[in-house]
Amino acid sequence: MLKKYILTPGPTPVPEKVLLEMAKPIVHHRTDDFSSIMSEAKGKLKKIFGTANDVIILSGSGSAAMESAIVNTLSSGDKVLIVNGGKFGKRWVEIANIYKLNVILIDLKWGKSLKSEDLEKKLKEHKDIKAVLMQSSETSTTVYHPVEEIAKVLSEEEDIILIVDGITSVGVYDTRMDEWGIDVLITGSQKALMLPPGLAFISLSERAQKHMEHSNLPKYYLDFKKEMKIQKLNRTAYTPAVSMIMGLNVALGMLLEEGLQNVYKRHALCAHATREAVKSLGFTLLCEDVPSNAVTGFYLPEEMEGRGFLKYMREKAGIIFSGGQDYLEGKVLRISHLGYHGGFDTIIAISALEMGMKKFGVDIQLGKGVRMAETILFENMDIV
Amino acid sequence: MLKKYILTPGPTPVPEKVLLEMAKPIVHHRTDDFSSIMSEAKGKLKKIFGTANDVIILSGSGSAAMESAIVNTLSSGDKVLIVNGGKFGKRWVEIANIYKLNVILIDLKWGKSLKSEDLEKKLKEHKDIKAVLMQSSETSTTVYHPVEEIAKVLSEEEDIILIVDGITSVGVYDTRMDEWGIDVLITGSQKALMLPPGLAFISLSERAQKHMEHSNLPKYYLDFKKEMKIQKLNRTAYTPAVSMIMGLNVALGMLLEEGLQNVYKRHALCAHATREAVKSLGFTLLCEDVPSNAVTGFYLPEEMEGRGFLKYMREKAGIIFSGGQDYLEGKVLRISHLGYHGGFDTIIAISALEMGMKKFGVDIQLGKGVRMAETILFENMDIV
Repeated sequence: MLKKYILTPGPTPVPEKVLLEMAKPIVHHRTDDFSSIMSEAKGKLKKIFGTANDVIILSGSGSAAMESAIVNTLSSGDKVLIVNGGKFGKRWVEIANIYKLNVILIDLKWGKSLKSEDLEKKLKEHKDIKAVLMQSSETSTTVYHPVEEIAKVLSEEEDIILIVDGITSVGVYDTRMDEWGIDVLITGSQKALMLPPGLAFISLSERAQKHMEHSNLPKYYLDFKKEMKIQKLNRTAYTPAVSMIMGLNVALGMLLEEGLQNVYKRHALCAHATREAVKSLGFTLLCEDVPSNAVTGFYLPEEMEGRGFLKYMREKAGIIFSGGQDYLEGKVLRISHLGYHGGFDTIIAISALEMGMKKFGVDIQLGKGVRMAETILFENMDIV
Repeated sequence: MLKKYILTPGPTPVPEKVLLEMAKPIVHHRTDDFSSIMSEAKGKLKKIFGTANDVIILSGSGSAAMESAIVNTLSSGDKVLIVNGGKFGKRWVEIANIYKLNVILIDLKWGKSLKSEDLEKKLKEHKDIKAVLMQSSETSTTVYHPVEEIAKVLSEEEDIILIVDGITSVGVYDTRMDEWGIDVLITGSQKALMLPPGLAFISLSERAQKHMEHSNLPKYYLDFKKEMKIQKLNRTAYTPAVSMIMGLNVALGMLLEEGLQNVYKRHALCAHATREAVKSLGFTLLCEDVPSNAVTGFYLPEEMEGRGFLKYMREKAGIIFSGGQDYLEGKVLRISHLGYHGGFDTIIAISALEMGMKKFGVDIQLGKGVRMAETILFENMDIV
């Protein structure tokens, strides 16, 4: 018997209620029944995005949504400023290069958060920037970038749009797209929104929609000029992932029923408990600045073979942790707090970490991390 | 959001694989398809019962199986010896009284295990005893009665049958009905066998079947003369709980795949970890003799209102513990290790206990019990 515990920053656990909804018979996507589900789901998405604009539902991954953000708002040769401080910052660069944009970088050491001064400096150097692209939560480095502050800096810049990958921050943080002035905001289904992978969500400000009018990059499936018009009628241009949208409606309903502020508090609390527990066990956090409440990362002991540890935990203990990405592979461990994750999931994570590390010969005092996590969680037991 | 954790000695968690099997379309119970499922399930049940005889599948609860054991093997006025040391011992007495049997008791203080000397003494006092009725694991007192020893004592008594309620021991302990000489053995679906409530299982030795021939107690639904004949053909006398039998076949398959010896080890390990953790936190075990590996009980602090604690844990933390039964209600807490329960369920139980107790003002050192549990579990991580 091996019970499995998904503690990765995507996919994340899916509530039974959502799985059962997705097991219902298919609704035809060219019917009023389907449009009414779309309409409900979109209403809920707007609350989580903090926007009065439509939130487009894409059948595709978060990466498809990232690409769509670029191809719908920019034109060939446009100068874009990319916050390059992790694997997903790098992905912005990759996509921008494919479409031959003129890429300017803010390079950050992995583990560091963006400072608004860094942005201001680059804006002074380059007067013709058309868009700033960033992550709010950089999953690979477990760092939070201060998107509200960044939006404030850009609020004075008429012609620059702010494109934010909120894949692991929407549903984790109180995000106010309209109020803060985010122009394009993206998220995916398999993170805080408690769904399997397969859907992505994107919303465009009025300013971004104006950019869209003259964007000349090639696109077909991801063309929002067509998609947005049709989605306003709660239909889709192409066949959508119907079951997932049915599940989405239920999952978002659960989040709203819990209360969005409680959802954000729960993520913050589990993240805080995990960070303190991990530190109390002697590990060093990967994040050197503002840590993300989506995922906590820390360095493994130097002599340790991280891939072997992950494999052991997965195969022998049923615990699915994440390792490091890119040059951090094998060197760090990441534990998610995303989505359908409560206080006892945090306890399982820390307990498994303690036992697993001891198994691998690390000098760990069993129970020490759990004690720290409990100390933080127990005051708020009724919200986790 | 409130994730729920069932930590009660019935119902117990049901694996997804079993739930999905039970969600399949109904198979008609008068078809070969159904008979083939019955046949497979019965083959697996025999291994868990340790018998070459048929194991009858009853659509009903464990209590129905207890009643069936009495009404099929005894006759009015028969003298029976009942081990009366807990709520379920009491249930044997209640049923025996309803059928006007001549009841002789071995009264045990709740928390004490039966000694074979107690039995030998009674057998000397009463030469005309027809049956001994007992629990192997008395769920209410979290005590194990040494059924193998007891069977040995009775092996020399030609005319006395041993009727054992194994509702929380079959699937927890290596039980060898034929080898030990148990005449009637019972269990229920919602305990170690990882199913919802609704089925009970019972097997009769050759000696018990001889008793059955001249039993004169009134019965209809529970009449085994009819049921056994039909079940040998892998059909049932009355409409059975078809979906549950489909689930049974899958659940038993999972146990056999894990390996029955591993299943027993897992129960023993989680029970051992729980007992040591609970003691390390300063609680006193309810069991004063041989503790059951099905469930661990301990006394709550005297000033504590147990029902309020259970309610709080259930409603605020999603943790479903069991309280005490009968005169122990409100005074003890019981934590199950039954069925689809692994090491991290034990960790959750102890962690929740620590935080909950502290919440209720008990002087608890957070993490101390978890540390003890981890110390025991981590050596065997790959079997839990």
